[in-house]
Amino acid sequence: MNSMDNTIKERLLAAYAAQQSRTYYAAWPESPRAYAEDGMARGLAVFQALLTQNFTALSQTGSDGWVGEEVSPYMMTGLGIQYPEFSAATLIQQAKDAQQVWGKTSVDQRAAVLLDALDRVAVKFFDIAYATMHTTGQSFMMSFQASGPHANDRAMEVLSMAYHELNRFPASVDWVKNMGKFDLQLKKNYKAVPKGIALVIGCSTFPTWNTVPGLFGSMMTGNASIVKPHPKSVLPIAMVVAEMQAALRAAGYPETVVQLGVDTLANPITKELAENEAVKLIDYTGGSAFGDYIETLTGKTVFTEKAGVNSVILQGATDPTAVFGNLAFAASLYSGQMCTAPQNVFVSADGIDTAEGKMSFDDVVAGIAQAVKGLAENPKMGAGTLGAIQNDITTQRVKSVEAAAGSSVVLASMAIENPEFPDARTASSAVIAVDAVDIAQWKHECFGPIVFVVKTNSHDHSLALAKECAASLGAITCSCYSNDESFMTKVEDEINAAFTPVSFNFGGAAFVNQHAAFSDFHVTGGNPSGNASFTDAQYVNRRFVWVGNRRMA
Amino acid sequence: MNSMDNTIKERLLAAYAAQQSRTYYAAWPESPRAYAEDGMARGLAVFQALLTQNFTALSQTGSDGWVGEEVSPYMMTGLGIQYPEFSAATLIQQAKDAQQVWGKTSVDQRAAVLLDALDRVAVKFFDIAYATMHTTGQSFMMSFQASGPHANDRAMEVLSMAYHELNRFPASVDWVKNMGKFDLQLKKNYKAVPKGIALVIGCSTFPTWNTVPGLFGSMMTGNASIVKPHPKSVLPIAMVVAEMQAALRAAGYPETVVQLGVDTLANPITKELAENEAVKLIDYTGGSAFGDYIETLTGKTVFTEKAGVNSVILQGATDPTAVFGNLAFAASLYSGQMCTAPQNVFVSADGIDTAEGKMSFDDVVAGIAQAVKGLAENPKMGAGTLGAIQNDITTQRVKSVEAAAGSSVVLASMAIENPEFPDARTASSAVIAVDAVDIAQWKHECFGPIVFVVKTNSHDHSLALAKECAASLGAITCSCYSNDESFMTKVEDEINAAFTPVSFNFGGAAFVNQHAAFSDFHVTGGNPSGNASFTDAQYVNRRFVWVGNRRMA
Repeated sequence: MNSMDNTIKERLLAAYAAQQSRTYYAAWPESPRAYAEDGMARGLAVFQALLTQNFTALSQTGSDGWVGEEVSPYMMTGLGIQYPEFSAATLIQQAKDAQQVWGKTSVDQRAAVLLDALDRVAVKFFDIAYATMHTTGQSFMMSFQASGPHANDRAMEVLSMAYHELNRFPASVDWVKNMGKFDLQLKKNYKAVPKGIALVIGCSTFPTWNTVPGLFGSMMTGNASIVKPHPKSVLPIAMVVAEMQAALRAAGYPETVVQLGVDTLANPITKELAENEAVKLIDYTGGSAFGDYIETLTGKTVFTEKAGVNSVILQGATDPTAVFGNLAFAASLYSGQMCTAPQNVFVSADGIDTAEGKMSFDDVVAGIAQAVKGLAENPKMGAGTLGAIQNDITTQRVKSVEAAAGSSVVLASMAIENPEFPDARTASSAVIAVDAVDIAQWKHECFGPIVFVVKTNSHDHSLALAKECAASLGAITCSCYSNDESFMTKVEDEINAAFTPVSFNFGGAAFVNQHAAFSDFHVTGGNPSGNASFTDAQYVNRRFVWVGNRRMA
Repeated sequence: MNSMDNTIKERLLAAYAAQQSRTYYAAWPESPRAYAEDGMARGLAVFQALLTQNFTALSQTGSDGWVGEEVSPYMMTGLGIQYPEFSAATLIQQAKDAQQVWGKTSVDQRAAVLLDALDRVAVKFFDIAYATMHTTGQSFMMSFQASGPHANDRAMEVLSMAYHELNRFPASVDWVKNMGKFDLQLKKNYKAVPKGIALVIGCSTFPTWNTVPGLFGSMMTGNASIVKPHPKSVLPIAMVVAEMQAALRAAGYPETVVQLGVDTLANPITKELAENEAVKLIDYTGGSAFGDYIETLTGKTVFTEKAGVNSVILQGATDPTAVFGNLAFAASLYSGQMCTAPQNVFVSADGIDTAEGKMSFDDVVAGIAQAVKGLAENPKMGAGTLGAIQNDITTQRVKSVEAAAGSSVVLASMAIENPEFPDARTASSAVIAVDAVDIAQWKHECFGPIVFVVKTNSHDHSLALAKECAASLGAITCSCYSNDESFMTKVEDEINAAFTPVSFNFGGAAFVNQHAAFSDFHVTGGNPSGNASFTDAQYVNRRFVWVGNRRMA
């Protein structure tokens, strides 16, 4: 393909226009109903046929054997899927070879291949949904949306931003400077030179949503890429990589422009890949300790999303019951395993302002606990909202946090019956009421279904603690409920100063957890929860270098 | 001032349009004749009146005393100018206080103040020229252009890029998502939040040109700034900071939004400033060792321009004499003290291709030496082109390099008589012919008037060595002379792959040293000569963070 189809260009420009205006936009509809009617049945069949088999859809040679250790949090059995195993050296060498071609491929050609890849992925949304469900523990609906249309939208957002930035300066220009008696004339050109080999390190809970932005960003800017998934969440991104390789193959490019490098918990290859001199770009999603290590590597450009501690500042509510319901849902969705889930709810010892006057701290705690309990025990809502627990460490954490909290536990975490999967590893959210001074309990990340209601001295104290947490521990979201305009202004100023966004008075179908592609920046890059943002301009600009050449005319 | 004058906006947009199109543009004309007719006389008088006095034009309180140790490379006497001395703690505290105001100042207001500052600086171009001349050793003309219009143009380039990027996303938007039976409506806003306090560390040779891009970049994006000049080159940037403070004062902002922090070689404050937790942005120009240290600081966003080794690949020339002349000028201009000056000229042992057939390696060496000698000894050109040597270490380096080279010295460096300044510290360029294998001689930075003509096995070997130098030691420029299209294509591809620009067949008034604002990126940021580029989008984007807030409509 030598020139880009106009349709492709139009799609990229439409997506770019949307993200510049920040208005609602979806390149792929989020409802499963917009896709094949028999999609669920076929997706399930595809998933089931893959179980206990070798995964052979990848186009990579030189493997040393087969590995795989995924476990379904719903079935609590191993998937038995084995992936080809590659040494770091093999992955790097193949990436270097592929880079010779991909680095010289035009921006238009790269865009055409990568958009084709997203279209191929869209055909597999149902397959990927079941793969996501049975690796992450997300509900089917979240699996479909997060790993399907929402992930594709995030990738499209990056593609369109990169397409704009790569075309930001002219390919060539005649430069003429009048020197008085004559003109000095130079012919100049400008090239966006790819940085090198890219490594994208995935996480266990959002194996495609958190991986494709960096992956498509690096590939669109001309960098051959190696995807290193979490060993417990391989299948969803393996399916995506297989489609990307199919798109490369169809267009006549080396399939190894993107490779999947699967490892095991016992024999990880991430550090060997990350420290390799040829790897110039690293995208990382996961825990802070490893993320901090990634950020210290020299000679690399790194993009991280690490852990944070998200706060809720509860100052007032016109309809407290609605607020508690919204909060309960945000905290319970996927059992608090979203990086955007609220953990600490700061409430003044005085209580909160409501339409019927003050509501006491104790009543607020009771209201939140009741909403969490009601949601968890609702047979139509509980199992579907909470999903399953991805990692047993999370289950253990809930138990140890509860044990340490003792009588502060207002609502204990419970296993939730899932009629479809009786063996599912489930846990509803624990609600724990603590005093602000007990920082050992609440002032650190407690990943999973744990909500602390923290008693503060005042609303301003609540704000100060939320800000301090965001600045020192990182935060991806902050939620504030208030009916006091001047307080809200102060909250916005102070929390924004810690480079954290605030969502005010969310109710109904609006949840703080959800960041919309093309409109909401995901992670700001300004606090310890990560150094990068989906998707500002530097998220793509830092993946290549502008080089200009001059020639005497 | 509540809204921006339309003229200001038009000037910013015109500058932005020029840098996007990369065509010739100058916001300030480069010829002194475009300014006051009596400018030179008045500038000299201003400079002379400042000698041996306390510099009182700064609006900063809380100083601990007076320091100053500048020496004129032309007069070889101390200037005797004393600047107020501030502790790092005082500078930081004042910056924090000023940041409270500046961080909340609108983009339009910041732009108005900073453009006013540049207009005020333009009135002082002649004063700044003499200050530059007698601190750096640049000729008057280079001092005028580099510290005057060219520096202002580079600052304007950053201002206009930042103005565009800061307005890239809407201040607010109504976001509406159709959920089937109802619309989910959110009011969103987007804020470009400044990162914090900025530190700008200047160098001795280009005290304003290399300082103002980062300084205006940080200030335009809302960060209160501290300028830490080189102790031997304070006066030019002190004059600029004084004008910036005047513009702030005139508009009613705290003058300490920008501060000058002068130190001494014996008691430097740079590390204390750089390591302070409140300092979030650092711009640095100078040697690689300190620059590498700056790059390792955690929790900071840093922009560096360090040292490099610039190459010339001499494959062929239609008119060798013209090429040698151009090369001699590029190497001699300001005695090789430009970061863009060529150091190593790679020539195949076979010689070069000319219109009259092969010219031998020895003849090439002789031709280059003759051109360098002719320029240096030309009474109308020599002193004005070479200027003076800023630092005695450079003079000593020339001597020790020549001593080590022994019989390889083809043309020894000479002191050049400057009729106006008989005591001037001058040194013409030494020309040394070496074999490529003698890497101890040529394969490291030799800052100053030293040119190595390196004998290689072939033109391809010349290319390989130039590329390897750029990749491992860094390079800001690369020059290539060739009449072979396929070789030039190869040179462009290979040298660009080391993130280094190439200038082909420069002659006449085109010199590889000169990077034009609005058109030529200065430093690519992709090789060890620096991690930043004047001016790509990330040069401004990394100085602030996008934060979006959402509110239930």
